[in-house]
Amino acid sequence: MNKSEKDKLSVISPAIELKDIKIEKPLRLGVMASGSGTNMETLASAIESGSLNAVIRVVIYNNPDAKVAQRAEKWGIPAVLLDHRQIKGREALDRAIVEILRKEGVDWVIMAGWMRIVTPVLLQAYADRVINIHPSLLPSFKGIRAVEQALEAGVKITGCTVHIARQEVDSGPILMQAAVPILDDDTPETLHERIQVQEHRIFPLAIALAARKFGV
Amino acid sequence: MNKSEKDKLSVISPAIELKDIKIEKPLRLGVMASGSGTNMETLASAIESGSLNAVIRVVIYNNPDAKVAQRAEKWGIPAVLLDHRQIKGREALDRAIVEILRKEGVDWVIMAGWMRIVTPVLLQAYADRVINIHPSLLPSFKGIRAVEQALEAGVKITGCTVHIARQEVDSGPILMQAAVPILDDDTPETLHERIQVQEHRIFPLAIALAARKFGV
Repeated sequence: MNKSEKDKLSVISPAIELKDIKIEKPLRLGVMASGSGTNMETLASAIESGSLNAVIRVVIYNNPDAKVAQRAEKWGIPAVLLDHRQIKGREALDRAIVEILRKEGVDWVIMAGWMRIVTPVLLQAYADRVINIHPSLLPSFKGIRAVEQALEAGVKITGCTVHIARQEVDSGPILMQAAVPILDDDTPETLHERIQVQEHRIFPLAIALAARKFGV
Repeated sequence: MNKSEKDKLSVISPAIELKDIKIEKPLRLGVMASGSGTNMETLASAIESGSLNAVIRVVIYNNPDAKVAQRAEKWGIPAVLLDHRQIKGREALDRAIVEILRKEGVDWVIMAGWMRIVTPVLLQAYADRVINIHPSLLPSFKGIRAVEQALEAGVKITGCTVHIARQEVDSGPILMQAAVPILDDDTPETLHERIQVQEHRIFPLAIALAARKFGV
């Protein structure tokens, strides 16, 4: 079985396509990321191709070394560093985030691999408008090392979830999920790679669904 | 989308077929059931068609009204009623079960919708040889009303799990899972029906896998 065949073993729900979700007015997104930014890039790519009617107004990252900064630059998206080690307290960090998001006129906050716990400061400023992606079929395997957790538990199917963020980590109304079979010879790396294929598939879809459901 | 198309949205893992699992010697199964016995019938049918090399030596049921008794009769399988209301204590019930299973020369104990909590009396007598099926993607939604639990949690994907039974309810090494998307208009009944299609698909497969893994 080659990589593409393995990816085809997965299913997404709901089983829709971006062309089936009409968004009248471009969504103004603010992306928060701590890592390499492949999920951010997926959104940028879906926007460029015209399949997601949105614009990424700003990328906020919290780690000077995060590759997402270079990726944002490549796509011509402003990127702002808010180094959590330089800002005392979670609330203070979130206040700084909200200030930037407001300044950029952001309507939807997208946590694309944001590795800090968010506080009511952000969640109340953008009530029901903070979207998170997590590499498991929630409610299983919340928190860090979700892919490893699934392998250690010996489950045969895991996946990824896009949901509206709530105060409790990896909780909140689910927008979309994808199921990914675990193969006998999977390592955390090979499994994570196949989960990411599905993350990139459902993330723009889930954002469009959220906008249709809750209004742009 | 018709029913068959909806069923095709599901995935099983591992993605194998019965013909790919060779079992040298017929597995001698004892089935425990509390309800209608459709999962028992699935096994009987897989055995009759020659796709599962096994024989159901006995069906044990705990409820005089359980339809599984008639179904067993239809297939010519001996069915024994052990009414839990007539037997004092879980251990005593399990001792009676083990006695029957041993008398019938059973090697593998199949809980096919058995609604009583089993005890170490059974689990030690048939160590690693008691197999359970549960209508969720474990570890999510253990216990009763698993289908309703999934709907209430708002997940978009649920499923079913076949696993080796352990003392803790709905725990133990997982043999096989199937993922079933939840559709917007699903009720507990429509969803349960689609999950059962997958249960019937993976149950004989998982039993064959267990035999291959742990020996007949």
